[in-house]
Amino acid sequence: MMRQARTELTFETQGRGLQEITRTVADWCRATGITDGMLTVFIRHTSASLTIQENADRDVLHDLNRFLDRLVPDDTSLYRHVSEGADDMPAHIRSALTATSLNIPVADGKPLFGTWQGLYVWEHRTHPHRRRVVLHLIGE
Amino acid sequence: MMRQARTELTFETQGRGLQEITRTVADWCRATGITDGMLTVFIRHTSASLTIQENADRDVLHDLNRFLDRLVPDDTSLYRHVSEGADDMPAHIRSALTATSLNIPVADGKPLFGTWQGLYVWEHRTHPHRRRVVLHLIGE
Amino acid sequence: MMRQARTELTFETQGRGLQEITRTVADWCRATGITDGMLTVFIRHTSASLTIQENADRDVLHDLNRFLDRLVPDDTSLYRHVSEGADDMPAHIRSALTATSLNIPVADGKPLFGTWQGLYVWEHRTHPHRRRVVLHLIGE
Repeated sequence: MMRQARTELTFETQGRGLQEITRTVADWCRATGITDGMLTVFIRHTSASLTIQENADRDVLHDLNRFLDRLVPDDTSLYRHVSEGADDMPAHIRSALTATSLNIPVADGKPLFGTWQGLYVWEHRTHPHRRRVVLHLIGE
Repeated sequence: MMRQARTELTFETQGRGLQEITRTVADWCRATGITDGMLTVFIRHTSASLTIQENADRDVLHDLNRFLDRLVPDDTSLYRHVSEGADDMPAHIRSALTATSLNIPVADGKPLFGTWQGLYVWEHRTHPHRRRVVLHLIGE
Repeated sequence: MMRQARTELTFETQGRGLQEITRTVADWCRATGITDGMLTVFIRHTSASLTIQENADRDVLHDLNRFLDRLVPDDTSLYRHVSEGADDMPAHIRSALTATSLNIPVADGKPLFGTWQGLYVWEHRTHPHRRRVVLHLIGE
């Protein structure tokens, strides 16, 4: 019978960079008892985002973050919104260019990530923050 | 019992920039009577898109738009597709870099936006357009 | 009655560029017999992605790809992760800036694409690859 489950998780980030949450999310899916369905991941912030990226070589995560550092500089002369710090407007832009919500199909109780895919919270502020992520699973 | 609702809304944009639709979408959700579920927002265009961004300081919206103006210049020498105007190919690129669909979990009849999150239609053409957005809610 | 369907499709890409899959996906939707619901498309890779873009003028696809070529150069001096080739790290970045999952509402057995919208697999590696895409449809 079709049903749904939902939770909100909190992650403490370490400042700008990617933090993997694949295992935590997969564990929650299994615990719901819903074995086939659709998982949605939603981050309740506009200066942190989500991404699915390679989970093998940590240099990939470094390079992803460095690319956005170059693309969206912490240069207050470029922005009007500077009252919350030089990193805040760049963080909003970085969020707009990446994902606020992601969907992953679930089969046999597991999200169908590819072999090299991991799920990450991407902190775009320079300082650590507490980030809230909602998980929702609908299925059977 | 699990059920779903769907509608199509039309928004008149004012040319390039962000237009908030949070309230309209939340009102529709409440009217469906589905109090817990998953909301999908889908824009039926390739030169306008969706984003969830800060709803407090309007300078954020200005800076977001200005960033894309710099990143994707209206410079016909850069593109082959120029027959629909200098702003059309940049509008497609801007759409590809932002969101065509977004998902927001719904609880107690309300989309679970974070405190500072608003939902926006992002017009990427310079002139006003009529934009069609489909809302879909599945739940109980 | 609410139910769901899921499949995994394989696409052989021709190297960097966009390959349309609209028809294949629409055919699968119709074959499921679910006429009203929500379609999710998910690509199980981190160096190829998804996008919904204009399906009329092929120059749009060319320009989209060329824009990312300029934005994310195949220049190994910019990246640490270079062991898998000069095009691999750029492919990860290009994936992070575009979509890994997309949602399209379905009505009367058809995804509600706008008049000019097509669905594409976007290969970001220079050589052809076999890419796996999961389709999931929930509805009635």
